[in-house]
Amino acid sequence: MDFSQGRDARYPRGVDGVINQPHPAPEDFRLTSILTALGDPARLAAVKTLAAKGESPCNRLQHDAGLTISRTTFSHHQKVLREAGIILARVRGTERILSLRRDDLDRRFPGLLDAILSAPGDPSA
Amino acid sequence: MDFSQGRDARYPRGVDGVINQPHPAPEDFRLTSILTALGDPARLAAVKTLAAKGESPCNRLQHDAGLTISRTTFSHHQKVLREAGIILARVRGTERILSLRRDDLDRRFPGLLDAILSAPGDPSA
Repeated sequence: MDFSQGRDARYPRGVDGVINQPHPAPEDFRLTSILTALGDPARLAAVKTLAAKGESPCNRLQHDAGLTISRTTFSHHQKVLREAGIILARVRGTERILSLRRDDLDRRFPGLLDAILSAPGDPSA
Repeated sequence: MDFSQGRDARYPRGVDGVINQPHPAPEDFRLTSILTALGDPARLAAVKTLAAKGESPCNRLQHDAGLTISRTTFSHHQKVLREAGIILARVRGTERILSLRRDDLDRRFPGLLDAILSAPGDPSA
């Protein structure tokens, strides 16, 4: 992950360009924000898909995760995940590429992501 | 934990009396409900305190967790935790006793509770 100088060292610079949206540094991750972010079924599905498939353009991720929601709603979910520190968003050409900040999460909250990713799916309501 | 027959086998009977509020069976726990329940700072503090001190009357738990919130708000938090499957509520005399359903949680979501309980506290805002 490239955390070279943007307008703030904590804001990652993309490979092709700066993405001028905040990404928290690992020491600023809040457990309650992580849990709230992953407590939403759509966001959890997106994160499970990212973990399984690796970094993805956001349109492909939405498709692969089976999220039949509006683009606006998916953008909101990306924002919640990014601001919690769960995903990294960067720009490549005209695409927005999302990836899981697995190393940062594992370092700050050991075992948490693995426990969540390996958990059984929700029973049908 | 006593899951002997109440009006439904999944509703636990307290030592001194039935508590007629639903407690989900472990196979009905939903990961998203657990994460949402623990994503609230007051509820997380209550659960950390229960884990550290063991079963507690609800008034003492609220005090020990340092929760200066209304009784109504704390009752709401208990409901969210109980309905997610995180705590067991039972009646002993005139007291309402709360405990952590650690075994049920560990069996259904291995490693999750430990990862959450051992996580560093949130940085100050």
